[in-house]
Amino acid sequence: MIHSVIMAGGIGTRFWPRSRKNAPKQVLSIGDNVPLISATISRIQPMVPLENIWIVTNLDQKPIIQTHLPDVDDAHFIIEPMGKNTAPCIGLAAVHLRHVDPDATMIVLPADHRITEADRFRECLLFAVEQAEKTRCLVTIGIRPTRPETGYGYIQTEIPYDSKEHQVFRVKTFAEKPNLNIAQLFLKSGDFLWNSGIFVWTVDSIMAEIEEHLPELYAGLMEINLQWETPKYESTLNQVYRSTKSISIDYGVMEHARCVFVIRGDFSWSDVGSWEEVYRISPKDDFGNAMVGETLLIDSEGCLVDSPDHLIATLGVKNLVVISTKDATLICHRDAAQDVKKIVETLLRKKADKYL
Amino acid sequence: MIHSVIMAGGIGTRFWPRSRKNAPKQVLSIGDNVPLISATISRIQPMVPLENIWIVTNLDQKPIIQTHLPDVDDAHFIIEPMGKNTAPCIGLAAVHLRHVDPDATMIVLPADHRITEADRFRECLLFAVEQAEKTRCLVTIGIRPTRPETGYGYIQTEIPYDSKEHQVFRVKTFAEKPNLNIAQLFLKSGDFLWNSGIFVWTVDSIMAEIEEHLPELYAGLMEINLQWETPKYESTLNQVYRSTKSISIDYGVMEHARCVFVIRGDFSWSDVGSWEEVYRISPKDDFGNAMVGETLLIDSEGCLVDSPDHLIATLGVKNLVVISTKDATLICHRDAAQDVKKIVETLLRKKADKYL
Repeated sequence: MIHSVIMAGGIGTRFWPRSRKNAPKQVLSIGDNVPLISATISRIQPMVPLENIWIVTNLDQKPIIQTHLPDVDDAHFIIEPMGKNTAPCIGLAAVHLRHVDPDATMIVLPADHRITEADRFRECLLFAVEQAEKTRCLVTIGIRPTRPETGYGYIQTEIPYDSKEHQVFRVKTFAEKPNLNIAQLFLKSGDFLWNSGIFVWTVDSIMAEIEEHLPELYAGLMEINLQWETPKYESTLNQVYRSTKSISIDYGVMEHARCVFVIRGDFSWSDVGSWEEVYRISPKDDFGNAMVGETLLIDSEGCLVDSPDHLIATLGVKNLVVISTKDATLICHRDAAQDVKKIVETLLRKKADKYL
Repeated sequence: MIHSVIMAGGIGTRFWPRSRKNAPKQVLSIGDNVPLISATISRIQPMVPLENIWIVTNLDQKPIIQTHLPDVDDAHFIIEPMGKNTAPCIGLAAVHLRHVDPDATMIVLPADHRITEADRFRECLLFAVEQAEKTRCLVTIGIRPTRPETGYGYIQTEIPYDSKEHQVFRVKTFAEKPNLNIAQLFLKSGDFLWNSGIFVWTVDSIMAEIEEHLPELYAGLMEINLQWETPKYESTLNQVYRSTKSISIDYGVMEHARCVFVIRGDFSWSDVGSWEEVYRISPKDDFGNAMVGETLLIDSEGCLVDSPDHLIATLGVKNLVVISTKDATLICHRDAAQDVKKIVETLLRKKADKYL
C-alpha cells in the first residue's frame, strides 16, 4: 500500500518574525491562506487516504501541528526526540511503517513546500510509485528549473531531461546549492533539475540502502525496532537519537545508492525557502509591490509588505521585505532574505526568548 | 517689560506617525526626553517669568499642550480659530499684549525648535531686546550656518557676519529655502545666516509695521481689538480669521519693513524639521545608526530606528528612518523624510482618521 510520510520537524527561522518556536513555518499560511502543512495533507489525500499518512515531528511542535490537523489520529504522529536532518527522520519513519505494513511504499514529502498544480503533482507521484515498486530503486522528484536559482540543490540526469517524452531518468549526480555562475550553467545544460526533496521508495529498499551507506544509523534503527511497543521504546529512541549523526538523506544515501531514478515533475513547485521566494510567488501591483493587510506604499518599489493589523507606511524605499507581527517587525533588504536566521541567532544569543 | 510669545499651533505632519492630531510636534520629545514645548518654556523662563509667557495655539491642541504645561495659567493661552501662518498669529498676540502691557517687548519663539546652549541663547535674546527697545526696529535672530542646508530660509547681512565682534547687522535681504547649489554659495559667502524664526520687537513697532505692510490684517486686528473682553470678541475673532490671508511674518512684514536687524546667534539650534534632522542630531553607533527603544540592527547602516516597545529588527538596509508607534509604523528613506506629509495627505484623502 502507498503511505505518505510528512516531514514536519523544522522551525523555518528564515520566516522570523512570523515563524516562532510555537509557530513553525509549516503551520504558517505563507503565500496562501491555508497553513502549508494543511495544504500538503489536502494535496496528497486524494491519492493517499488519511489512515496512510504519517507526520514526523517533535514534541515541541506536535501540539500546534495537531491544532491544524484535527483529523489526523494521534497514533499517526511519529515523534523524534530532536532534529537530526532527513536521514534519521526517514529511517525512523521506515521502521514505523514496516510494522504497520511490511509491503509499504513510502512517499516522503516536506510539510512546508508550495505546489499549485495538485493534479499533475499526484500523477507524477503515482508514476513514481509504479517505478519504485517495479524497479525497487530509490526514486526522487526533480523540478524543471525556470531560473538560475542558487537556493536549491540540483539533480543531474544521465540524458537531457527533455530528450524523451518519458519522464523518468537515471541520476548521474546530485549537486549542492550552486553559486550564480554554476546555476546559470545548470539552467542552460538541460540536464540539471531542481531537487525537490520529495522521495518515493519501498520500505525495504530504503532500509537496505541505509544499511549499506549509513550502517551506524541502521544499527540504531534496529535497536529502536527491537523495542517496538515495549516500555523501553522511548528511552532507546532518545539514546539512539542523541548519538546519531545529523545527516541528510541526499548526502547520506541518495548520492551513494546503487540505483536512483529521478522523475521530471512538471508541476509548479516552490520550497518557499525565504521571504524573497514569498515575494516571487505573490501577486504584485504596477510598482512590483506585494502587499497584505494594512499597508500604504508611497514612492516605493519592489517591496513585500505583510502586516495583518498594524499600518505600515513606506516612503521612497526599494526592494524591502517588511513583515509585521504583534510584538516584532522585520525590515530586510530582499537580497538579504536568506540571512534572516542571523536575527534569530542574535536573539538566541541575547536570550530574547519572547521573540523566538 | 519683556514678554515671550510661544507659537504652538502647528501639527508637524512630517513627524507622522509620532505626530497626530492630538499629539502635535511641539508636545513630542524629539531627540530628547522632554517635550519640545516644555523645553522651550524652561529655556526662556530664567529670563522671562511665567506670568509674561503667552502660548498661541488653537482649541484642538490646547488640552494636550496644557497637560505638558501645568504651570501656565489658562488666561495665558491665546486661541486662534484656525492656523493662518505666522503674521496673523503674531498680530493677534500683539493685540493681546498691548492690553496687558502697552510697553511690552515681545520675544516670539516657535514652540518646536531645539536649542542646546541655553545660556548663549538667552544672552543673545537679551541683546536683541536691548536693540529692539533702543532702535524700535524689528530684530530677528540668524544662526551661523554649518552646512548647505536646503530646508531653511536664509537672511543676508549687509556686511559679512564675521567682520566684526559686534553681532548685530542690518538685513540686506531674506532668501527662501534655496536649492543645493545656491545653499552652497550662501554657505561660502559669509553673509547668509539661517533664519531661525525667532523675532524680537516692541509691540508698537510690530503693530506699526503690520499696519503699513499688511493693512487688511491690521484692520482685522483692530476689529478684534475693539471687542476686547466684550461678548462679541469670539465671533469677531472667528470672522476676521476666516477671511484673513494666510501669510508668514517674514514674507508679509520682514521683507518690506523699513528697518530690520539680524543678530548672529552663536548657540546650537535646529528647527527639527524632519526625521532626517532628528537623525542628524542623534547619537550614533559605529555604523551610523541611531536607535531608541527595542531595536536590533544587523548589516545595517545610517538608519534612525525609534520603537519604544515593539521589536524592530533590520537586516541589510541603509539610510532608513523607521518610526514605530502603537498602531502605525513609518519606513522611509532618509532622503524622503521631507515627504512624510505625503503619507498624512493620503491618509486624509482615504479618511483613515484613526491614523491621523
